Amino acid sequence: MNILDIIAKKRDKKILSKEEIEFFVQQYTKGNITDYQAAALIMAIYINGMNKEETTFLTLAMANSGDILDLSTIGKEIVDKHSTGGVGDKISLILLPTIASLGVSVAKMSGRGLGFTGGTVDKLESIPGYKTNIDEKEFIKNVKEIGISMISQTMDIAPADKKIYALRDSISCVENISLIASSIMSKKIASGANKIVLDVTVGSGAFMKNIEQARTLAKEMIEIGNLAEKETVCILTNMEEPLGYSVGNTLEIIEAINALKGNLSDDVKEVVLSLGSYMMKLAGINDNIEANKTNILKNLENGTAYNKFIELVERQGGDISYIRNIEKFKKAKYIEPIYSLKSGFIEEINAEKIGKLACFLGAGRLKKEDSIDNAVGIVFSKKVGDQVKKGDILAFIHANSLEKLEIVKESLLQDISISQDNVGKYKSVIEIIN
Amino acid sequence: MNILDIIAKKRDKKILSKEEIEFFVQQYTKGNITDYQAAALIMAIYINGMNKEETTFLTLAMANSGDILDLSTIGKEIVDKHSTGGVGDKISLILLPTIASLGVSVAKMSGRGLGFTGGTVDKLESIPGYKTNIDEKEFIKNVKEIGISMISQTMDIAPADKKIYALRDSISCVENISLIASSIMSKKIASGANKIVLDVTVGSGAFMKNIEQARTLAKEMIEIGNLAEKETVCILTNMEEPLGYSVGNTLEIIEAINALKGNLSDDVKEVVLSLGSYMMKLAGINDNIEANKTNILKNLENGTAYNKFIELVERQGGDISYIRNIEKFKKAKYIEPIYSLKSGFIEEINAEKIGKLACFLGAGRLKKEDSIDNAVGIVFSKKVGDQVKKGDILAFIHANSLEKLEIVKESLLQDISISQDNVGKYKSVIEIIN
Repeated sequence: MNILDIIAKKRDKKILSKEEIEFFVQQYTKGNITDYQAAALIMAIYINGMNKEETTFLTLAMANSGDILDLSTIGKEIVDKHSTGGVGDKISLILLPTIASLGVSVAKMSGRGLGFTGGTVDKLESIPGYKTNIDEKEFIKNVKEIGISMISQTMDIAPADKKIYALRDSISCVENISLIASSIMSKKIASGANKIVLDVTVGSGAFMKNIEQARTLAKEMIEIGNLAEKETVCILTNMEEPLGYSVGNTLEIIEAINALKGNLSDDVKEVVLSLGSYMMKLAGINDNIEANKTNILKNLENGTAYNKFIELVERQGGDISYIRNIEKFKKAKYIEPIYSLKSGFIEEINAEKIGKLACFLGAGRLKKEDSIDNAVGIVFSKKVGDQVKKGDILAFIHANSLEKLEIVKESLLQDISISQDNVGKYKSVIEIIN
Repeated sequence: MNILDIIAKKRDKKILSKEEIEFFVQQYTKGNITDYQAAALIMAIYINGMNKEETTFLTLAMANSGDILDLSTIGKEIVDKHSTGGVGDKISLILLPTIASLGVSVAKMSGRGLGFTGGTVDKLESIPGYKTNIDEKEFIKNVKEIGISMISQTMDIAPADKKIYALRDSISCVENISLIASSIMSKKIASGANKIVLDVTVGSGAFMKNIEQARTLAKEMIEIGNLAEKETVCILTNMEEPLGYSVGNTLEIIEAINALKGNLSDDVKEVVLSLGSYMMKLAGINDNIEANKTNILKNLENGTAYNKFIELVERQGGDISYIRNIEKFKKAKYIEPIYSLKSGFIEEINAEKIGKLACFLGAGRLKKEDSIDNAVGIVFSKKVGDQVKKGDILAFIHANSLEKLEIVKESLLQDISISQDNVGKYKSVIEIIN
């Protein structure tokens, strides 16, 4: 087999075989195919496309390029959850302990944030002592013993995907549905799950800017899941405005703790109920979605979900006194309210812009090497569709630099748009595709 | 300007501006754009195409990437000639001294052979003493004093083209008309000509395998020529069978010397007359094509062309005693005739296969670094359409290795196909496009 022939084939819009795709992924990962040859092939794939089989072969080849987590000792049905990324997305922190408290085994490896979207691992690490880098053995032991473990990607999961993604990023080949789908699914498959629930975010703060794109991506991932024999459900959720009220690592942990005590914003609640009820169904707990939702809500309200979270944090070495008393979390130096300059209805809180502002405050990283500031961020008092009066507090900025505070303040007043007409609230769960 | 935006633009089938194309060519040549980014852009260009303006901008940017030969001191109309490559192509060796003897200034820089096509420089260097690497000053001086100089590319002509061509070769992006056209034209423009006659070869031994492709390439090059204000004429010539009778460096020099004395095969004669008459027209000697042909033929027959060649060789340091007595040329160790196994008519002498056999004997190089053997090659006694009887000599193999001789012998007997029906002779000059 020869990379020149493979490139020429895709260049001429022909279909690549399983063997050809495996050859490319294996040899590129090993360094036997150059970056420029891979770049030419990726561009040809971007322009000429791949069919469902090719996309699945690529996914599986990337999944098989590194370690494959073996979760078979935990149980038969291992359901994983993944979000395509968003601003203020603390769903995993609330959802996973809750369904663990309902009997779903949760073996979750999460990523760090990059760009304006946050990462669950960064949020967990804002709990003093919480270890996200425990080894595979301990990870599986925790899941077996307390039903849940949440860690960072410690193993060499899908290194081919890492290498190809970095290349795509440097040759303007990121925004391709097949490539995005195979990147996400390769990591999920290598992470050992046999069933997958995907939160496909849609809107300004998401990768997919409109519903049509998100639907196409969802269908592509479900198709890959089917061909790879991993049952997959996609839930399209809104990401036009930030999810919930807070954006920033510690701030989101605090919002999650409150949610686990039953104090959830409507949008967060709706997303948790949807994802959770399908995860319970796939895990074989109960096929009845409505019943699952009722049980999730019950455990959020009666403290069972909260207790599971405490158990998780304790097991991972985290200091649970912070969870029990959120006042202990280190606060930012400056916490400044933003007052509405006029009366009306909140029309827009652009998630992408808010994500970038939080990132600017120090809550996110632009490059992988950047360090982050856990304390900073923005806490909103209002959501799109809420009525406001002049002088009402719209949000609090948590900053560790006066200069940055001033810049974000000015920007926020422009980015939260207020109109005389009520545009109404966003639908948090847009569509379920399975 | 940003290479990521430029890649994304062409990826999305948009038209690149002059500035964007220049930015790419300049920064890639300088090494500020990586090979993988260039590879992605080239693949996007290959698949999504370039319009005439983009192709011309690319051509000019590549032409301007290195030295530009200034031939203005020689005269107003400097006509250059270029062939897209073939097997047994000794046209320049015959044509250029001939038209120089008719008053056309010839300042010719030629390339070396690569793959199965030979290079004029390699052929010239099989004349003992002939220096192909004289400097620019001496080159121009020679043209001024004796009307002709033929050298190798000593200067840094179109380095961007060299770099981009090498990249294309390693990412399956060679066979694209716009890229081929801009590569050829960039070198011609940098070589200082203001008028260009192109021999666009068509057939098994050429880059363009069919007339339709060749016509498209010709039109593209003429368009670039027009936009770059370099009047260009393309002559489509046959390359299904080798040109003339011999393939191999010394063997072709000998055929050229005989041709310059008026002994030309029909196909060589036709191509020389066509190219020469148009070069004379573009040079402003005479607009009458038929009159030009008559004069070319006259000078080939009366010794004037031959004398000009002697003058050229002498001026470049070559030993003219070899020209005057071709028996002096070093011969291959083994010269073996191939006899026809049956009677009939020659149906095919596949130029590509013959080129590869000559290369295998040592007449060509597969890699730039390979050395070549001037003496070896194949001399045909018959052309396609000729009648043969069983036992007739079809060709002579000139080899320096018995082993190679045997392999080529066996192959040749299969590659020269003989049929009972006369397929007729090829038309040597297929079409003139201007």
